[in-house]
Amino acid sequence: MAGFRLGLINPNTSVADTEAMGSLVRAALPADAAVVGLTAPGGHAAVETESEHVTAAAQVLALLRLEPDLDGYLVACFDDPGVHAARELTAAPVVGIGHAAYLSATLVGRRFAVITTLRRGIAALEDGLDAHGLRERCVGVLALERGVRDQGGADAVAPIVALGAHAVEELGADALVLACGAMAATAAAVREELGVPVCDGVAFGALTVHALWRAGLATSKRNAYAWPVG
Amino acid sequence: MAGFRLGLINPNTSVADTEAMGSLVRAALPADAAVVGLTAPGGHAAVETESEHVTAAAQVLALLRLEPDLDGYLVACFDDPGVHAARELTAAPVVGIGHAAYLSATLVGRRFAVITTLRRGIAALEDGLDAHGLRERCVGVLALERGVRDQGGADAVAPIVALGAHAVEELGADALVLACGAMAATAAAVREELGVPVCDGVAFGALTVHALWRAGLATSKRNAYAWPVG
Amino acid sequence: MAGFRLGLINPNTSVADTEAMGSLVRAALPADAAVVGLTAPGGHAAVETESEHVTAAAQVLALLRLEPDLDGYLVACFDDPGVHAARELTAAPVVGIGHAAYLSATLVGRRFAVITTLRRGIAALEDGLDAHGLRERCVGVLALERGVRDQGGADAVAPIVALGAHAVEELGADALVLACGAMAATAAAVREELGVPVCDGVAFGALTVHALWRAGLATSKRNAYAWPVG
Amino acid sequence: MAGFRLGLINPNTSVADTEAMGSLVRAALPADAAVVGLTAPGGHAAVETESEHVTAAAQVLALLRLEPDLDGYLVACFDDPGVHAARELTAAPVVGIGHAAYLSATLVGRRFAVITTLRRGIAALEDGLDAHGLRERCVGVLALERGVRDQGGADAVAPIVALGAHAVEELGADALVLACGAMAATAAAVREELGVPVCDGVAFGALTVHALWRAGLATSKRNAYAWPVG
Amino acid sequence: MAGFRLGLINPNTSVADTEAMGSLVRAALPADAAVVGLTAPGGHAAVETESEHVTAAAQVLALLRLEPDLDGYLVACFDDPGVHAARELTAAPVVGIGHAAYLSATLVGRRFAVITTLRRGIAALEDGLDAHGLRERCVGVLALERGVRDQGGADAVAPIVALGAHAVEELGADALVLACGAMAATAAAVREELGVPVCDGVAFGALTVHALWRAGLATSKRNAYAWPVG
Amino acid sequence: MAGFRLGLINPNTSVADTEAMGSLVRAALPADAAVVGLTAPGGHAAVETESEHVTAAAQVLALLRLEPDLDGYLVACFDDPGVHAARELTAAPVVGIGHAAYLSATLVGRRFAVITTLRRGIAALEDGLDAHGLRERCVGVLALERGVRDQGGADAVAPIVALGAHAVEELGADALVLACGAMAATAAAVREELGVPVCDGVAFGALTVHALWRAGLATSKRNAYAWPVG
Repeated sequence: MAGFRLGLINPNTSVADTEAMGSLVRAALPADAAVVGLTAPGGHAAVETESEHVTAAAQVLALLRLEPDLDGYLVACFDDPGVHAARELTAAPVVGIGHAAYLSATLVGRRFAVITTLRRGIAALEDGLDAHGLRERCVGVLALERGVRDQGGADAVAPIVALGAHAVEELGADALVLACGAMAATAAAVREELGVPVCDGVAFGALTVHALWRAGLATSKRNAYAWPVG
Repeated sequence: MAGFRLGLINPNTSVADTEAMGSLVRAALPADAAVVGLTAPGGHAAVETESEHVTAAAQVLALLRLEPDLDGYLVACFDDPGVHAARELTAAPVVGIGHAAYLSATLVGRRFAVITTLRRGIAALEDGLDAHGLRERCVGVLALERGVRDQGGADAVAPIVALGAHAVEELGADALVLACGAMAATAAAVREELGVPVCDGVAFGALTVHALWRAGLATSKRNAYAWPVG
Repeated sequence: MAGFRLGLINPNTSVADTEAMGSLVRAALPADAAVVGLTAPGGHAAVETESEHVTAAAQVLALLRLEPDLDGYLVACFDDPGVHAARELTAAPVVGIGHAAYLSATLVGRRFAVITTLRRGIAALEDGLDAHGLRERCVGVLALERGVRDQGGADAVAPIVALGAHAVEELGADALVLACGAMAATAAAVREELGVPVCDGVAFGALTVHALWRAGLATSKRNAYAWPVG
Repeated sequence: MAGFRLGLINPNTSVADTEAMGSLVRAALPADAAVVGLTAPGGHAAVETESEHVTAAAQVLALLRLEPDLDGYLVACFDDPGVHAARELTAAPVVGIGHAAYLSATLVGRRFAVITTLRRGIAALEDGLDAHGLRERCVGVLALERGVRDQGGADAVAPIVALGAHAVEELGADALVLACGAMAATAAAVREELGVPVCDGVAFGALTVHALWRAGLATSKRNAYAWPVG
Repeated sequence: MAGFRLGLINPNTSVADTEAMGSLVRAALPADAAVVGLTAPGGHAAVETESEHVTAAAQVLALLRLEPDLDGYLVACFDDPGVHAARELTAAPVVGIGHAAYLSATLVGRRFAVITTLRRGIAALEDGLDAHGLRERCVGVLALERGVRDQGGADAVAPIVALGAHAVEELGADALVLACGAMAATAAAVREELGVPVCDGVAFGALTVHALWRAGLATSKRNAYAWPVG
Repeated sequence: MAGFRLGLINPNTSVADTEAMGSLVRAALPADAAVVGLTAPGGHAAVETESEHVTAAAQVLALLRLEPDLDGYLVACFDDPGVHAARELTAAPVVGIGHAAYLSATLVGRRFAVITTLRRGIAALEDGLDAHGLRERCVGVLALERGVRDQGGADAVAPIVALGAHAVEELGADALVLACGAMAATAAAVREELGVPVCDGVAFGALTVHALWRAGLATSKRNAYAWPVG
């Protein structure tokens, strides 16, 4: 079986984000895997609001159409924009980092908290948890009130640690989910500080796409995700 | 990073089952991974009823205690007996094949059907789907009325294909879940016949344990899964 | 209070669709109301799949930005593409015809059935009902297996009547929801035949936008629907 | 089409309440609409407890039977007493102000808080939200501990504003729902203070009845709301 | 401890119904228990529709006020009309036969079916199951299309047996619930025929009131069921 | 009808616990009832964690098999270990004290709080409430951080009273549930202090088994709880 080729779809316009996430993904996947980083040619530098998610979803589909023959795709924006739609356009597996982060959190903890950037996004995240049937597993969605572009750096660790400690000690979280691709760079440091699993969905998401591919599980082409006609 | 060592916990007494599942797992994991098959020394040859699941759960804990230092564990009985309890006894990741099969089905399809052995088990499977928040994703739990010990052979494919075709064509399933470890041997043949993803949780479950390990995600030792004291 | 000006946002490219829905809306609104029909300059002639909904959502935002100063907006595609996002971009009320159809069905019946075009769309409609908290009110989502472009004509009535009779007599529906803007033209004929309320969301949706405006209820600009910054 | 005639059913005995709500309704409906105020001849001056709601429901049916030929009915008590039953007794649309307030809140905000009079009523309101499928949309039901008869006056605004500010700033509400018909008189003042939509269901409810009538949507007479026989 | 005195509240006007249920209750309770049968002085001879339930609820409160000092109350109409309200008016325990029937069904089976009189009542029963959190436990609400006044006699057994056999053999019910007090007289015969538990709530409901009393569990007078003031 | 014989199954190894609960049960049941106390011969002296619950479930089945011919069984550990499985092994009714406590709380209050020993057990209790469909009825699961072996004595009352007062006054609980069999001894004192119903499930659970037996309701032997074969 030839080496696995992953499309890492970053629906924002930041090549630096694509590269940062690409490093995490390459470190996690087997040595012979190829990672094709795909950065949105247009749209927003950071995706935080619902209107930005609409643009991001369109970018996801455009990027997938540019590289339609890879072995699997990771949609690297926590809201999972366009994931259902992307599954219509390929038979390869497609995973969003948000969904992947939640799945991993349910495997290593019985309750998790979600840490996000802005309060305005809490309702959309809660609705996403409802759609996955996971709202009862989540002890709370907590906002840093610090935007995407202020995540990922060394000074971004302490605010996450403070909120995470509250979630573990007061709210009963066993694990944390970082609801923003740009936070992935700080996950290891947060885990170190708090001693609980910190799930960001980037590395685990790429490994999940790979696992589906290894297990021979491709996107269904019957019913909901059938190829669009005409 | 040294090679990954997986504990494959089979809570029934059939060494043949452990070996059959071990082959699927070894074929899926990287070449340098070690798979330690653990077969229940006591209990039942097949686990189908709730009282057998109680025994199976106790066997899972006993087997894990025999080999407490592996890198991760796959509980290879679809009902996931003792999985929450097992997570108390180790910091390594623990995954059940039932949970794994459901997760994979939600990644490659929007609706799935579950195919099981006996009608008496339908309510317990539905309750399990509720506990995972996935009942709304499932179009039906369908029983073959054919027991565990009659699964896995060549003549076991046709009944599954018949029920699966009904699920895909009439009930709107995109993917199928086979709710019995012994069915895993027939998953590839069913997939071939029906052209939809067929999820059994054995290979994908082992890959999921591996993915958690690669991503550095260990079972939380805070709150619900903390080490038992005293 | 000056006359009400409604933006009728049709996210497909069919001017005929915009005009047909515009006629229904004008007949329902007060005589001094103005209806500004907005047809997508690009995208798809019919919106049926998830990937087409992604495009439609982007068109909704583009059309709203073209006419940002109206008193309210009706998004005239049953899937309500981009409605959450559109509410970020205006303080005027924004209603989708899908949501409006469901609301009206819950006011004139205790149980409703949804009649849609293609089976592939059933799962997305069910997920939408879940998101609105209405899945328990719905006795079933039934597909005609007849596409959007074959709706609205005289020959489209009989298949809907047949499915609707089944829903009322066998499934216990009190009311029907037609899950496609193009079906609105046939709603009156179906109601005539079956003697139950038939909800399409076009006229009632426009009246709902008007009712919000009359009651002084504008889209909130705090929290989830706050203006995007930067 | 002749002018619309609305039955405004006030199930308490306060003519002043009927008149206050009638003013709000007349100001919202078209100029040629007629509003027939119907005040309970017996029962309670204020409806706050479950036993008072039982009496109120009986009053609703009695008042509807007094004026059975109007074009639509608004049940003007927030608990919506007797609304399902009233729909059995007429083919005209029947809307409760509680349901109407919730619907409007879901159209102008993604999360809302409910402000009510007494703590003892919180559980019943939560159960009502569950019945509408809206509990996940509500960030909390908050009690003033100030009864119905102390609502509506100028001094009633400040306590609602204080609780509402807490709901918007701490709990993440985008909109507020005032769970008491007598609070409707203060809705405009609260909105002015807080700058968020304040939904009371009186004006919007009347407009909703009117919208159903304009759209030709009458109460179904099949299945749940069929005419009682014998 | 003196003998237990139960108020058997029958909210319809049929003394024969009160007596028939009284016999079942007396046979179940200890020999020294007193049963005070209370028949509605007004209202309906049979309670089947929502508008009849409104009247029945008012009758329940009136009857309880007539005999306010008993040790517990059984509301003997399957819809449990006025039960929440009745709990405001007494500190003694109050149980409805519908709730009691459902509780017993969840104790002797994992899935149950509900058999009712008329199809028009199915939605209200489903909503009641939702309110109790039990809809997922119920495999279906099935209607005989045979009214209350045609229940209870010898010829009423066969139709229930036919529907019950379908529920057990095709739908997977372990137990049956008879959703009408007048069906209680036939429960034993149905059980005999089908060999599954048949739950009607009359005898078990009276025993439940007695059990609460024996265990010293009275209706709470804090929060939701506090005494009404003024 | 001969006297009722109850199997009181205590899945921990403490004979003192069996005797303490036996006293409560004997005081509640009729004078001619026999209570057979069954104490686990092996396993744990206190059952608090998930791995201890696995052992407890196996003990429940072993104890039931020792005394298979009694008229009913009460499983006297709040987590209800092995209750579904036990119902496969007998046609007599089987009730767990956890389920019984919840049922009684829903009959005497509209909202309840659960008071438990350790925080680590909160998630499992919440999941149990979800499985019973009762999570919306519960205002919170509150932990004393005081283990099973420190419950039941005179000094155990004050901490429960403090937490219970918070639940009633701040969270809106009408009733309290004590989530540990060993707390049953203090229930009366807590009730005395707080003036709300305090539900422990021991006495009420035994009375519920008796009520099922009196009403002729035995565990179903069709479908989910059928006798295991082979």
